[in-house]
Amino acid sequence: MNDAFPDVRLLVFDIFGTVVDWHGSIVREVQALHPQVDADAFALAWREGYQPAMQRVRSGELGWTRIDELHRMILDGLLPRFGLEHLSEPERRHLNHAWHRLAPWPDSVAGLQRLKHRRTIATLSNGNIGLLTDMAKAAGLPWDCILSAEVFRAYKPDPAVYLGAARVFDLEPAQVMMVAAHHEDLAAARACGLRTAYVERPHEFGAARAKDVSPRPGNDLHCADLVALADVLAGPG
Amino acid sequence: MNDAFPDVRLLVFDIFGTVVDWHGSIVREVQALHPQVDADAFALAWREGYQPAMQRVRSGELGWTRIDELHRMILDGLLPRFGLEHLSEPERRHLNHAWHRLAPWPDSVAGLQRLKHRRTIATLSNGNIGLLTDMAKAAGLPWDCILSAEVFRAYKPDPAVYLGAARVFDLEPAQVMMVAAHHEDLAAARACGLRTAYVERPHEFGAARAKDVSPRPGNDLHCADLVALADVLAGPG
Repeated sequence: MNDAFPDVRLLVFDIFGTVVDWHGSIVREVQALHPQVDADAFALAWREGYQPAMQRVRSGELGWTRIDELHRMILDGLLPRFGLEHLSEPERRHLNHAWHRLAPWPDSVAGLQRLKHRRTIATLSNGNIGLLTDMAKAAGLPWDCILSAEVFRAYKPDPAVYLGAARVFDLEPAQVMMVAAHHEDLAAARACGLRTAYVERPHEFGAARAKDVSPRPGNDLHCADLVALADVLAGPG
Repeated sequence: MNDAFPDVRLLVFDIFGTVVDWHGSIVREVQALHPQVDADAFALAWREGYQPAMQRVRSGELGWTRIDELHRMILDGLLPRFGLEHLSEPERRHLNHAWHRLAPWPDSVAGLQRLKHRRTIATLSNGNIGLLTDMAKAAGLPWDCILSAEVFRAYKPDPAVYLGAARVFDLEPAQVMMVAAHHEDLAAARACGLRTAYVERPHEFGAARAKDVSPRPGNDLHCADLVALADVLAGPG
């Protein structure tokens, strides 16, 4: 198969939900550490705090604050609801680092390995640099470069993040493709002139809670997973 | 051999001269493109403009300007001295990108591969993120993370760069080791509390112009090359 987007030189990836399975990973960690807790509800509640916490930074209510710190603030608020208010400081720190240990979806490593043959592949996540680096090392994610909201001091969907990624590589926005399992992320990237690829992750919120992954107009590509994306962009191999 | 620095979790590397051979690489590119030019003198003159150009940024005379742009300003100034003022815009751009294509010293890839087994390895260079990423991809340098002056918007030896690297990984400065072939870089890192390893690169300025690489007090380690550093830090393998 020929390369469908020869002008695209840089692929940037959303991470939580797109490349790694945050729900399944958090559930497994919580189940192992605290078997009495409803781990599914815990994972969902933790993630539910994510957008509101970033909104406090976007609005200026909080100064620049990294995801590690935001995850920790949300966690501290959650623990009493789940009967875990007794957790010590080292236990809280360990649990908060579960986000550094998220497991990739089964296709992620193989897909990225193929995609990086012809193009540069980079994270473009609201996760902080240290979190993304630890995750890549643990999961074997073969990034050429770790880009993060932390580099641009702005959270997606702020245009500074998408345009900043193009600028780092001296590319026009149309030479960059954003890959994500979230339509809002892709819509914001598209508004900046980036190409977009939607990745189906029907079980992002757990196998029992299937997400609508039907195609929407506007995206350049719609793929079942990262191996399917490699089939389109990288040819067979 | 046991690990001599068990507390050190992150190794950060100077790049130009320490991991890659800028002089030899620039000489080869200039010789191939413009055989009539004194490539050795050209390479030295280009690099000589480097510190003064960064100084214009450090002093505030220039706003934040990346190394790609500084290299280009120096290049444009140099070309008439070498009879190359006729170079077209695409030719200038291609030549300026020679810094994205610098070749590693023969030990660099093997040393880094061993060093990354037990620790996180990252660039900590005044080179910009795109330059360092292109170089890593071309040369096979297996960084876990690309850190650059561009992330911190300050040039080494500004403390913001060294302390910024520790902060990105939530480490104390003493848990970070700076690896460089330049004593000034190491002295500035040491002043911030980092550990330091000096790497001998006697031919940084060309085989005909051997550099004094004798040990100086203050550095935690003094190594012939990155494989020797791996022998100390990573054990045999």
